[in-house]
Amino acid sequence: MTDFNIATMAQQAKKASRVAAQLNTSEKNTLLNAIATAIEHNSEIIIKENSKDIIAGREKGLTQAMLDRLVLDDKGIKGISSAIREIAALADPVGDVDKLSLRPNGIQVGKMRIPLGVIAMIYEARPNVTAEAAALCIKSGNAVILRGGSEAIHSNLAIANCLHQVLTEHNIDKNIVSVIPDTSRSVIEELLQQNDTIDLVIPRGGEGLIRYVTENSRIPVIQHYKGVCHLYIDKYADLDKAINILVNGKTQRPSACNAFETVLVHGDISAKFLPLAAKALNDAAQVKIHACKDSIGYFTNAELATEDDYHAEYLAQEIAVKVVSSYEQAINHINEYTSDHTEVIITQDISRGQNFVRQINSSVVMVNASSRFSDGNQLGLGSEIGISTSKLHAYGPMGLEALTTEKFVVFGDGQVRV
Amino acid sequence: MTDFNIATMAQQAKKASRVAAQLNTSEKNTLLNAIATAIEHNSEIIIKENSKDIIAGREKGLTQAMLDRLVLDDKGIKGISSAIREIAALADPVGDVDKLSLRPNGIQVGKMRIPLGVIAMIYEARPNVTAEAAALCIKSGNAVILRGGSEAIHSNLAIANCLHQVLTEHNIDKNIVSVIPDTSRSVIEELLQQNDTIDLVIPRGGEGLIRYVTENSRIPVIQHYKGVCHLYIDKYADLDKAINILVNGKTQRPSACNAFETVLVHGDISAKFLPLAAKALNDAAQVKIHACKDSIGYFTNAELATEDDYHAEYLAQEIAVKVVSSYEQAINHINEYTSDHTEVIITQDISRGQNFVRQINSSVVMVNASSRFSDGNQLGLGSEIGISTSKLHAYGPMGLEALTTEKFVVFGDGQVRV
Repeated sequence: MTDFNIATMAQQAKKASRVAAQLNTSEKNTLLNAIATAIEHNSEIIIKENSKDIIAGREKGLTQAMLDRLVLDDKGIKGISSAIREIAALADPVGDVDKLSLRPNGIQVGKMRIPLGVIAMIYEARPNVTAEAAALCIKSGNAVILRGGSEAIHSNLAIANCLHQVLTEHNIDKNIVSVIPDTSRSVIEELLQQNDTIDLVIPRGGEGLIRYVTENSRIPVIQHYKGVCHLYIDKYADLDKAINILVNGKTQRPSACNAFETVLVHGDISAKFLPLAAKALNDAAQVKIHACKDSIGYFTNAELATEDDYHAEYLAQEIAVKVVSSYEQAINHINEYTSDHTEVIITQDISRGQNFVRQINSSVVMVNASSRFSDGNQLGLGSEIGISTSKLHAYGPMGLEALTTEKFVVFGDGQVRV
Repeated sequence: MTDFNIATMAQQAKKASRVAAQLNTSEKNTLLNAIATAIEHNSEIIIKENSKDIIAGREKGLTQAMLDRLVLDDKGIKGISSAIREIAALADPVGDVDKLSLRPNGIQVGKMRIPLGVIAMIYEARPNVTAEAAALCIKSGNAVILRGGSEAIHSNLAIANCLHQVLTEHNIDKNIVSVIPDTSRSVIEELLQQNDTIDLVIPRGGEGLIRYVTENSRIPVIQHYKGVCHLYIDKYADLDKAINILVNGKTQRPSACNAFETVLVHGDISAKFLPLAAKALNDAAQVKIHACKDSIGYFTNAELATEDDYHAEYLAQEIAVKVVSSYEQAINHINEYTSDHTEVIITQDISRGQNFVRQINSSVVMVNASSRFSDGNQLGLGSEIGISTSKLHAYGPMGLEALTTEKFVVFGDGQVRV
């Protein structure tokens, strides 16, 4: 590791990105399917290397939840290879030209989708990200530099070995995929200075990691700090839909960023809705309630909500509840407390549904559907590389297209500007 | 100016951006046409304030070229008001949903175009940018903070007065448009820290300004350093088209970033092409030639090109010339020296044309057309707010759409995730 140099790695990745950009869809799919097979064939080595991470993790005192995310068994390996085969099956966005317009002077002008170049991924414990992020970058014609958590370093390097083996067998520059072997924090700082060679940084992990990367990067960063998703039960809500969506969005997977954290209830319907909600949330998962003064009476064992509760991303079976006196008050509350992730209205009134979609500019806005659909796969993007809650370049769940950009193409026949 | 606070201005702009985002197209067009009229009605005051800038500029020893860019007369005012009326006539991208897809569970998913929020523009001498950038931001539903050069401060504030007068008359939050009255450099530094309230920074000016903004900003920045545009004359070129496009792209407006700076000539055609090129460039504008050793013999008074010449953005009647032995060598040269602005191939061979468009990933790639078309208006975007040569968010000339992003919209009927 003494010979390791991040600037050299980034330059090699940039050179390799030109190779990646020129691979056609068949070549990329062949590679991806071969990678899936290689990961299965090497499952014994990968699992053995993974066990070194597990042992080190236990010694370091990682929590059981962290160890669970870290562990790779046969089922985990199978999950990785299936995910890569699914990425191979996705449509390739590279080369698409939506339309060519004819300008008055006869030149044809269009926009062609092209890879971004070099993507750097900085992430925490899960070793499956190493393989899946690499597969998404290959499919979209990019080179990728991967910097996983130190907890998964043996697993990540074992997976990288498989990837390099396949690339080499196919006579393709193996620097299309680089895994940083150095697990020190200083290497991230250095990585984030390579703005001449790296086009985009995608951090995946806790808010601390994302803030650290954003504050230290000279390369553009995709940001996703947290998900404080709101559910607004309008006065014209269908109560069955409202209860089902509340329970699903809150309790199905409370640790996900697309789980509800606050429910706003229109005052005209609160006396009907809140008793049903209290029972349903309690029955489903004994959800802990942080209620406003107007709603607290409907719950047993609720605590009075504070200002902090309306900013909270509980990531647990907890929810903040607030009665609002009007549709406008709901909109104002959401605009004030939004994390720009996902907001949902339940209403049967067509105008309110339309207005909500028009007035709320979070990255995902829904009418009468569960926030749990706010996910690349559920929204039809195929696999997800991340999610952006800042508006530049990508907004919301990011699939292959978010790893590309568009250049202008012009076809003339000798035209000059007059 | 002692009371001026940039953080407060940015917060007020963010608040106003919600108002801007909700204006419908008719409301925005009414505003823009009223602004155009107000600028015409106030031309006397604007010209009087502009003359203060001109006097100060002379005292400060500005060059005649800078004074020319600064001066506003009746014709200049008319130019501004026409540009604003043209922006009013452009199609409004906000609210567009290209398509809604039906997912297997019956939810409909689409992407709706929305404004970015708050745009900060940092620019140099030209006071017309103040009015035109404000108009583009209003039309795309954004709020804007404008920080023009100190040389134009009186002109910029006079134009801002017109804008505020019209917004106030229409009972619309005037903080949709803010002009920073403080011309110190420290105010830019402070502005670039407002990443909680400002969504995008667009610097327009020399490479120094753009580097300074990029290096000091915590807000995403649209970058455009320079335009080293290449013209490649393939062995299958039509020589008439080649000469016309070379002369047009180099000499029509050499100070523009879309002018050619290097011409590459295939060796098989150089003995025919170079004598014609030498005569045409000399006849058109006595263009100064920096030639490689294989081409220098064709020119009178050419200098031998150095490595620096192939990196140069002359912005003058000068060009670098190089003979290449193959199509591949041309591609390699462009990939090595590109500024990701505009590259052109002249060829009658359909495969070479296709390959060039596929293999070169600059922001604008052309076949048989002049680089001078690399401009928002010429490419059909209407007015241009800037140009990006970095791939994130926007790439190439930027029109209204580059001032927007897309959110996901989901229409369900009670669906929950299983």
